Amino acid sequence: MPTYTPPLRDMQFVMHEVLKVAEEFKALPPHADVDAGTIDAVLQEGGKFAAEVMLPLNLGGDEEGCTLDKTTHAVTTPKGFKEAYARYVEGGWAALSCDPAYGGQGLPFVVNQNFYEMMNSANQAWAMYPGLSHGAYEALRAHGTDAQKKLYLPRLISGEWTATMCLTEPHCGTDLGLLRTRAEPVPGAPDGTCRITGSKIFISAGEHDFTENIVHLVLARLPDAPAGSKGISLFVVPKFLVNPDGSLGERNAIYCGGLERKMGIHGNATAQMVIDGAMGTLVGQPHKGLAAMFVMMNTARLGVGNQSLGLTEVAYQNALAYAKDRIQMRSLSGAKARDKPADPIIVHPDVRRMLLTAKAYAEGARALLNYCALLLDKEQHHPDAKVRADSAELVALLTPIAKAFVTDNGWTATVACQQVFGGHGYIHEWGMEQFVRDARINMIYEGTNGIQALDLLGRKVLGDNGASLKKFGKLVAKLVEEEGVSEKMAEFINPLAYLGDQMTRFTTEIGFKALGNPDEAGAAAVDYLRVAGHLVFGYFWARMAQAALRAIEGGSADPFYAAKLQTARFYFARLFPETATLMRTARAGAGVLMDTDAALA
Amino acid sequence: MPTYTPPLRDMQFVMHEVLKVAEEFKALPPHADVDAGTIDAVLQEGGKFAAEVMLPLNLGGDEEGCTLDKTTHAVTTPKGFKEAYARYVEGGWAALSCDPAYGGQGLPFVVNQNFYEMMNSANQAWAMYPGLSHGAYEALRAHGTDAQKKLYLPRLISGEWTATMCLTEPHCGTDLGLLRTRAEPVPGAPDGTCRITGSKIFISAGEHDFTENIVHLVLARLPDAPAGSKGISLFVVPKFLVNPDGSLGERNAIYCGGLERKMGIHGNATAQMVIDGAMGTLVGQPHKGLAAMFVMMNTARLGVGNQSLGLTEVAYQNALAYAKDRIQMRSLSGAKARDKPADPIIVHPDVRRMLLTAKAYAEGARALLNYCALLLDKEQHHPDAKVRADSAELVALLTPIAKAFVTDNGWTATVACQQVFGGHGYIHEWGMEQFVRDARINMIYEGTNGIQALDLLGRKVLGDNGASLKKFGKLVAKLVEEEGVSEKMAEFINPLAYLGDQMTRFTTEIGFKALGNPDEAGAAAVDYLRVAGHLVFGYFWARMAQAALRAIEGGSADPFYAAKLQTARFYFARLFPETATLMRTARAGAGVLMDTDAALA
Repeated sequence: MPTYTPPLRDMQFVMHEVLKVAEEFKALPPHADVDAGTIDAVLQEGGKFAAEVMLPLNLGGDEEGCTLDKTTHAVTTPKGFKEAYARYVEGGWAALSCDPAYGGQGLPFVVNQNFYEMMNSANQAWAMYPGLSHGAYEALRAHGTDAQKKLYLPRLISGEWTATMCLTEPHCGTDLGLLRTRAEPVPGAPDGTCRITGSKIFISAGEHDFTENIVHLVLARLPDAPAGSKGISLFVVPKFLVNPDGSLGERNAIYCGGLERKMGIHGNATAQMVIDGAMGTLVGQPHKGLAAMFVMMNTARLGVGNQSLGLTEVAYQNALAYAKDRIQMRSLSGAKARDKPADPIIVHPDVRRMLLTAKAYAEGARALLNYCALLLDKEQHHPDAKVRADSAELVALLTPIAKAFVTDNGWTATVACQQVFGGHGYIHEWGMEQFVRDARINMIYEGTNGIQALDLLGRKVLGDNGASLKKFGKLVAKLVEEEGVSEKMAEFINPLAYLGDQMTRFTTEIGFKALGNPDEAGAAAVDYLRVAGHLVFGYFWARMAQAALRAIEGGSADPFYAAKLQTARFYFARLFPETATLMRTARAGAGVLMDTDAALA
Repeated sequence: MPTYTPPLRDMQFVMHEVLKVAEEFKALPPHADVDAGTIDAVLQEGGKFAAEVMLPLNLGGDEEGCTLDKTTHAVTTPKGFKEAYARYVEGGWAALSCDPAYGGQGLPFVVNQNFYEMMNSANQAWAMYPGLSHGAYEALRAHGTDAQKKLYLPRLISGEWTATMCLTEPHCGTDLGLLRTRAEPVPGAPDGTCRITGSKIFISAGEHDFTENIVHLVLARLPDAPAGSKGISLFVVPKFLVNPDGSLGERNAIYCGGLERKMGIHGNATAQMVIDGAMGTLVGQPHKGLAAMFVMMNTARLGVGNQSLGLTEVAYQNALAYAKDRIQMRSLSGAKARDKPADPIIVHPDVRRMLLTAKAYAEGARALLNYCALLLDKEQHHPDAKVRADSAELVALLTPIAKAFVTDNGWTATVACQQVFGGHGYIHEWGMEQFVRDARINMIYEGTNGIQALDLLGRKVLGDNGASLKKFGKLVAKLVEEEGVSEKMAEFINPLAYLGDQMTRFTTEIGFKALGNPDEAGAAAVDYLRVAGHLVFGYFWARMAQAALRAIEGGSADPFYAAKLQTARFYFARLFPETATLMRTARAGAGVLMDTDAALA
């Protein structure tokens, strides 16, 4: 069974030595007193919860899965899941970064980010139950009526209830414009009260035995709705109706009709939801449901990147331990463990390549996702409107990268870590194949990685004529300027500066071609996103190298900093050069893909 | 449930229009009369068996898996598997390319290659049961005593019995030198009769209900064996002892002690074998067991590449059908299916990219594996010793590429095809996630892909100072010379010629560094293999483009040829440029991997 040690030192490095979050928090009134010590103490406890309560349930949860009683529509989660959730609620973890006005602890998103990373390492399937609640909390907080907020937010924050996002239908996932679920206003009932009818699929945490009630946020069409995506409204549809005093009323007509048999995340109930005239109330404006839902969606996309960060980290830790323990063959450059019949496999260069790939991707992702969380904190709480707007713009740019680049890398990394185990990696009991299967969904849900690429190139980059990309480019240029004369930083700064220079021309070129033929953007988008991802990871790896060098120059002999430099070196030498190919293939043009009707007949 | 149409036309193209196998067979006495019509007729029937008998059992076999009765040690295979095997035997399929002296049909390996591709597409887990028999047949035929051949070959060829390879032990997979299973000569028994004791793991098809007997080929150490890999002998250890007249004697002390729970190929029984003083007879010379086993192993490595070719093809076919059927969003360049509420997703450039990736990898692999099979036919039967030796050398060079490059590509391809399905790709009933899980083992077993890379670079290339690589290089140079002036071939020939030119310098450079530090070879090997793989695929794609252009110039209006050109164009524009990055990362040197003790502490 896999083991897991919360990477607290690495988190502290990113938060306190690279991003210096506590200094940033001083400018944010609600977080002005949040210091490094507080954050570290919370995360230490959070890490214990992940490692001691959640991790032991991960392998068994995968084996057992969830079961549906077709008569009662009740879902039983794997052994121990329910009890772990009770401890989660008891510990107040659901409230971590929620609004104190509704009972939250009001800690920064940065704290939540790192706590969720650990939960994802320990048990992604389990972490999805509270994770979905958090997204619904944010959508209701942003768009709910006062009555809805009063009724639902405190119970979501306490964890007494959980929530879901009910978007997908059998015939529509990406294309929500095709959505068919109907909402009929109830005559005589308060404004926005409707009866909802339809079928939803792929509803994560859609039914379970953790809580008495489940709050479903459901997309549906009102009778007068325009066709397409501009005619979709958002409703809150609780499993049990809620009386004005918050007590539970009758069972609502929304129930689980089936559970999907799927590749991974077996411990999470992926439900088919039958909605048969269920009572719901409108959230936000009629026909503006997608906008309200996107509040959840954007958080969810960062959350999905974080899931793959968690899996990459835990897969890495286990592969590293195995590589030190497993003896097999001698080093090509002469026996290293002469007292043993063979050397530990970590002596083999290619085993190190696989391990370092996972390590470099995990640590790059951790820096990026902490940075995004910090931007969210600034977007919400900075007193300067310009800073809030800039933060919002930058996090919008980085979100598709944090989702797609991190989950594609997480796939590569978990597969590499599985490979370190040889044949044992294919066997369930070692847990490595589960990490791979779980990681696979992260490239698909909350908008496939192909959709993220279109979002990045089409909306976020070309949509504003490269303005937000230029903002990120300025950060890169500033770092290059700061460190351009440092000999020790040259190996990190030079490739970054080179790519930074190329990026504008590369983007302009694709943008120009796309003006003539929009399929040119579609043909280049996926490779473009990976180039942008390396620009971002290159930037954070250079900043991490910078922080490590400063510590060493400041007299620290902690091998932690040497480790950071070695990993940065590996990243720039072995992973970053992928951009050489990607810039070529992104430029290959749409014709080679689209003039293929004979080939794809 | 997935569907499958045997790609007979594509096979015929490779065999008859690119490789012209029937002309080559004229020089091989036993195959001189094998014409295209005969081959095509056999494969048509073989395709029916795969599509009609094996495919319908694939999804259910994955769900059900194999079960072990711990009391009787009997294994039950999934519903329908046993009956399908009876039909396989009845159809004479086991005998296809086996020696007529023992009851085989004596057809060329090329025929077997294509038949197995179809079996692998239809049901890899099932195909492994007869697949392992075929490897054992070859090892016994090459190294067995006359008595062993007489006793075992006819029954393996008829399919009456199956066979296994028992190599791996819990503490040794790659490093068979660590093997502990013991063989004690039985006093008074004929020479080479031993009692074998030990534990084996990961034994594919190790126990089942298909046949009355199972013939295990077991590696073990004789009492006087030198330590390490030079002290390993090969034994034949039948499940039931065999009387001299071929009838079954008593149950031998080799039995299944457990079945592995694993990521995929659930329909195949991956057995832990307990060998408790079982009677076995020596195959080949004492202490030379590895050499004898390598006869099986080399065939098995080509067979594993073929498994991933099969999976790539079937995943492609299903993803293509889905992409034409599933409607979602409009084309970026304007609605294409105005009569429908959205366009079929095949209008999206990135969906085409994913489909064409799978198609180009499948067709490249088919050309390579047919070429390898042809080389095996020539190695066995060509009257000219020089041709036999050259063929053997070339197939030895290409084997690690056919194993590792094709299975890595198969992974990329099946994952891409799964991605085409969006969320549905993660759901079991569509079958796509099974292709991915099954494809994963192919990168691990029969020598991990990392081991293949060391075999290629260390033994096959640097080991003979690049002589066999130069032989392949001459084929490339010849093609470049033939087509260098053709304007229509330029887009295929130019990149190939460029890589061909680079390859010598690239190899010499790594070889030179490896002389100083063998870890340099280990650090470069995996990327080197992929570069070599693209040289080989580039060569075959150029030959396929050449054959297609000739057909078009000859007046053919068959869109099949236009399809080949479109796919070749895609391959060179979007897949082949990976070499730009690989040549850079392969040259990054060992230091960046090995000077990482702090990072990997």
